Amino acid sequence: MGATTATGDRMDGTALTRADLPPVLVVGLGLIGGSVALDLRAAGATVRGVSRSETAVRRALEIGAIERGGTSLADEAPHAGVILVAAPVRTSIRLLSEAAASAPPGAVITDACSSKREVVAAMDRLPPTIRAVGGHPMAGKESSGIEAAEAGLFKGATWVLSESVRTDDEARRVGELLAEMCGAVPLWTDATEHDEAVAAISHLPLLTAAALVLAAEDSGSELMWRLAAGGFRDATRLAAGDEWMGSDLLLTNSHPLSEAHARFTARLEELAAAASAADEAALFRLLRRAAERRRSMYGWEQPR
Amino acid sequence: MGATTATGDRMDGTALTRADLPPVLVVGLGLIGGSVALDLRAAGATVRGVSRSETAVRRALEIGAIERGGTSLADEAPHAGVILVAAPVRTSIRLLSEAAASAPPGAVITDACSSKREVVAAMDRLPPTIRAVGGHPMAGKESSGIEAAEAGLFKGATWVLSESVRTDDEARRVGELLAEMCGAVPLWTDATEHDEAVAAISHLPLLTAAALVLAAEDSGSELMWRLAAGGFRDATRLAAGDEWMGSDLLLTNSHPLSEAHARFTARLEELAAAASAADEAALFRLLRRAAERRRSMYGWEQPR
Repeated sequence: MGATTATGDRMDGTALTRADLPPVLVVGLGLIGGSVALDLRAAGATVRGVSRSETAVRRALEIGAIERGGTSLADEAPHAGVILVAAPVRTSIRLLSEAAASAPPGAVITDACSSKREVVAAMDRLPPTIRAVGGHPMAGKESSGIEAAEAGLFKGATWVLSESVRTDDEARRVGELLAEMCGAVPLWTDATEHDEAVAAISHLPLLTAAALVLAAEDSGSELMWRLAAGGFRDATRLAAGDEWMGSDLLLTNSHPLSEAHARFTARLEELAAAASAADEAALFRLLRRAAERRRSMYGWEQPR
Repeated sequence: MGATTATGDRMDGTALTRADLPPVLVVGLGLIGGSVALDLRAAGATVRGVSRSETAVRRALEIGAIERGGTSLADEAPHAGVILVAAPVRTSIRLLSEAAASAPPGAVITDACSSKREVVAAMDRLPPTIRAVGGHPMAGKESSGIEAAEAGLFKGATWVLSESVRTDDEARRVGELLAEMCGAVPLWTDATEHDEAVAAISHLPLLTAAALVLAAEDSGSELMWRLAAGGFRDATRLAAGDEWMGSDLLLTNSHPLSEAHARFTARLEELAAAASAADEAALFRLLRRAAERRRSMYGWEQPR
C-alpha cells in the first residue's frame, strides 16, 4: 500500500500504537483544535497546525500546542499522516476536500464537528486514496479561540466516531488513538443516529436557551435582569456560545432538529396547559416524570 | 403599641438592630427554612423551628439550626416575635393564617415563596394586630430537605421584599434585617412586578427544562442518554428540582407564566423557522443577539 510512510501502516499487521502515530496536522486552531493539539503533544505526538489567522498560529506555537504551523493548508498537508479538521461544520466540509487534495496518499482525515451526517457524506466523496473517519469530541465551553484552549478539556468525555465509506481498519484505529490520547472515550456511532441524539440534547437546548434570553428581553422588565440568578444562568448557558458555530451546526442538522423541536413543543404545551388550567394532578405528574428522569441521569446536584 | 415586648419596638424611635431582633420562629424546616435558621443563629438570633416532620425537627436541633422546636405551630407561635414561613406557596398561604392565629399581637410574619402576589394578598387579609411582609430569598439548589440546608446559602443573593397592607416600618426593618443576617441583599419590589420577572427567569425555564427532558425521552433514542453532556445538564438542571415545590409555584403564578410562555414560543418558532428554512442571516442575527445579551449578564463562562 502506498501509504506506508505517511500513515505508519505496519507490514506485520499489528495495530497502530501511540508511538507510531504519524505526524498530525490540526486544521483550525480554536478552542477545540488548540485543546486537541495540546493533549496530543502531551501524549507524545508530532503536531503541526494550520489556521487562516496568523495570530492563532503564533499563539498555538507559544503555548506549545503545535511544533510548526502556518496559514496555508496546501503547504502543511503534505507533511501529515493524520489531519484533524476542527472548524465550524460547513467550513470543515470544505476543508476536508482541500486537505485531501494536498495530503499524501493513505493519510487519515478526521473532524471534530457536532453534526456528523453531512460531514460523513462529504468524506464519502473524498478520493479513494484518502482515508477518513468522522469524529465528535463531546466537550466544550462557551468561550472560543486558541486563548480558551486547555489541556485535558476532553478528559473522560465521549468522543464519537462515525464511519464513512473511506473508513478502514487503519482509520478506525487512528480515530480511537486520537480520542484516547486526549483522555476521551471513543464511541462508534452511526452518523444519523448521532445527529438525532445531539438534536435533542444539544441543538434544541441551544435554540431554547436563545429563545429564553430573547423572550426575557422582549418582556421589557428591568427588574428581571436584577433578579436573574443561578437557574436562568444554567438554563441559558448554551446561548452564550459562539454564534458562528451555533448557526452552522443548526443549519447542518435541520431535519433532526425540527423533529426534536416538534416533540419539545408538544410537551411544553402540555405543561403550560396544565399550569394555566390549574390541573394540579397533570402538572405534578409531568414534573415528577421529568425530575425522576433528570435525576436518574445526573443525580442530585450541588448548589447552583 | 401592644406589640412592644413581642417585636422589640423601641419607645425611643431608633431602628431595630440585630441585637434586639425578637425570637424568630422558622415554619418549615427544609432546605430554605433550615438554611435561614443556620444563618440567623450564626448572626446571633434566637431561633425556634416548627415542622410537621418530627425527623426534620430533630435534625434541625442536631445541626444547630434551631434552639427549640416542635411539630405544633400553635404551640410555638406564641413565643415568637418574628415568624418566617418557608414552605411551598399554597402551604405557606395556609400557614400564614395559622401562624397569625397563635402569634402575639404585633408579631411580624414573613415568607420565602418564589411567587409573591398571592402570598401578599393573603397577608393583606391577616388580622390588623399582625404585621406582615413578603419575602423571597433568591437562592436554592435542586436538593431539598433539612439534610440539604447549609449556612451561607444566601450569601450575596438578592432577597426580595414586597409590601402588604400589613407592612409598617417595623415589618420593613425586620424584613431587611433577616436578609442582611443571612448575608443577602434586600430588594424592595412590587409583588406583581416580581412575579412577572420570575415567570421569565425562573418559572418558564423550569417548564422548558422539564419539556426538554420529556421530549428527549419521547424520542426513544438510547444513544442520547449516553451522549448527554454538560450542555444538556445545565439546560435541564431546573427540572431536577422538587416537583411539589415546582407545581406549586407554577400554579400560583399562572398568568405571568402564560405571558412569558407566549413570548418564548414566538421566539422559538422564529429561531426554528430560520433553521429549517436555512435562513442563515436570520438565524445568525437571532443567535448573536441572544449571545450578546447573555454575555452582558454573566460574561464569558468557565467550562461546563
